[in-house]
Amino acid sequence: MHIGIVGLGLIGGSLALDWRQGGHRITGVSRRAATITLAQERGIIDHGGTELSLLASCEVVVLCVPVVQLVQTAELVCPHLRADAILTDVGSVKAPVVQAITPLWPGFIGGHPLAGTAAQGIAAAQAQLFRQRPYVLTPTPGTHAPQLARLQTLIQELGAHLLVCDPHHHDRAVAWISHLPIWVSAALLNAAAREPDPQIAALAQQLASSGWQDTTRVGGGNPELGVGLAQSNREHLLADLRHYHQEIAQVIAMLEKQDIAGLTTYLENSRRLGQAFPGKRG
Amino acid sequence: MHIGIVGLGLIGGSLALDWRQGGHRITGVSRRAATITLAQERGIIDHGGTELSLLASCEVVVLCVPVVQLVQTAELVCPHLRADAILTDVGSVKAPVVQAITPLWPGFIGGHPLAGTAAQGIAAAQAQLFRQRPYVLTPTPGTHAPQLARLQTLIQELGAHLLVCDPHHHDRAVAWISHLPIWVSAALLNAAAREPDPQIAALAQQLASSGWQDTTRVGGGNPELGVGLAQSNREHLLADLRHYHQEIAQVIAMLEKQDIAGLTTYLENSRRLGQAFPGKRG
Repeated sequence: MHIGIVGLGLIGGSLALDWRQGGHRITGVSRRAATITLAQERGIIDHGGTELSLLASCEVVVLCVPVVQLVQTAELVCPHLRADAILTDVGSVKAPVVQAITPLWPGFIGGHPLAGTAAQGIAAAQAQLFRQRPYVLTPTPGTHAPQLARLQTLIQELGAHLLVCDPHHHDRAVAWISHLPIWVSAALLNAAAREPDPQIAALAQQLASSGWQDTTRVGGGNPELGVGLAQSNREHLLADLRHYHQEIAQVIAMLEKQDIAGLTTYLENSRRLGQAFPGKRG
Repeated sequence: MHIGIVGLGLIGGSLALDWRQGGHRITGVSRRAATITLAQERGIIDHGGTELSLLASCEVVVLCVPVVQLVQTAELVCPHLRADAILTDVGSVKAPVVQAITPLWPGFIGGHPLAGTAAQGIAAAQAQLFRQRPYVLTPTPGTHAPQLARLQTLIQELGAHLLVCDPHHHDRAVAWISHLPIWVSAALLNAAAREPDPQIAALAQQLASSGWQDTTRVGGGNPELGVGLAQSNREHLLADLRHYHQEIAQVIAMLEKQDIAGLTTYLENSRRLGQAFPGKRG
């Protein structure tokens, strides 16, 4: 199949790498010519350039740009596509993206591979990044079934764990497990920074170990990414944050009352809930 | 030196192992005879038993029992100690322990090694568990300087990073970096469990990856341990939880107002704060 990748970062580059190794023909489009040169040198793409017209003969085009640039990119890409092209994306939020792009291109099917590394850019692209990781597709009632089937096949070729769901369901689920943790974690860092005694603050830094490191990791990530996700999934994140705020208030109330039984039940519940999530890492 | 270890779990057993390998003579005391047998078979102690009278000739005695049992254990141990014995503990909270045990034994010096593994018990004891990990001692103005010096030497023999500070300072620091994260993390698990739609809940479990796993890890730990720490360090933890509650309220307010600049600054601050903590793990 002839596949076009728009945006050759970690995700775009890694998709290109796997599909090309699987025998597909890959056309890459990037705003920067240097990225294309690097991608060709590393054998990530067959050919490419900075012009969207290169996508004219692609059967599948994947938009691998940041969520906030997706709709604008789709507007620029669509005039160049062949009529039967499947258009998809890799954004972390789906309902607003599907709602905005489907009118521009009826053959659009939202996608979200849940894979990544701390590194970014084409230089970080790697083979088998998606193997055994979830890859969500969010078709709508208007999605053409044969097009969905073709895209599903491509994703299964990555070795990914394919999930098909409603775009709103996707956004509600990722608000809980991906977007809420960013702010929970960032608030912990910001709260600890309130310590007024510099001696205590310095001691805390010396004593911090794996528990602190783990709990604060996602709060210390890329600010633009975190805010972009919050903007795109604002309603679900707000609802979840309000629930979370109530949970913290409940813990405070139990501790004020020295409700040991209540606190114990609380941590017993969280241990049970933690065990319910499979230990997928990466 | 002749060292007595009361409570042969992960910490007590690992201390015994390192000190015995360093040439010290180790007497172990446990409530369970089977633990003593296992400790002897593994070469962790020189000899031991279930009777506290075995501690009579020890120059240093380390209480390695859970925080909530420390004072009661000290009451039972003190009548058996020689007059010049140094008594110390490994509890995660220091001020209430120091306040309660010092009147029972003036030669008491609070201690807290910040090391551990997910595994527990004598079977999990390992050599060099404390190497390059913080080990805090919390002497008081009444502490006998030569006794402090002798205990410091023993701790340095473990290869640990020795820190000496006021017991209250210790408790304020660990409230931020150790006790608060437990409840921050547990509240995230409990909040996500509020999702009323079982289909969304199931999807969230399938999509959860390393960010979720890391942020929820300490909230899924031992409930008795978490509640014990909360009880012992209640005032500091309560103050920190109230600060944290305000932080979450601030995030909600910014998101409600779509204050993108404020949210961006918030995550920029947390990234900077996260980088200020050295990457100690383990």
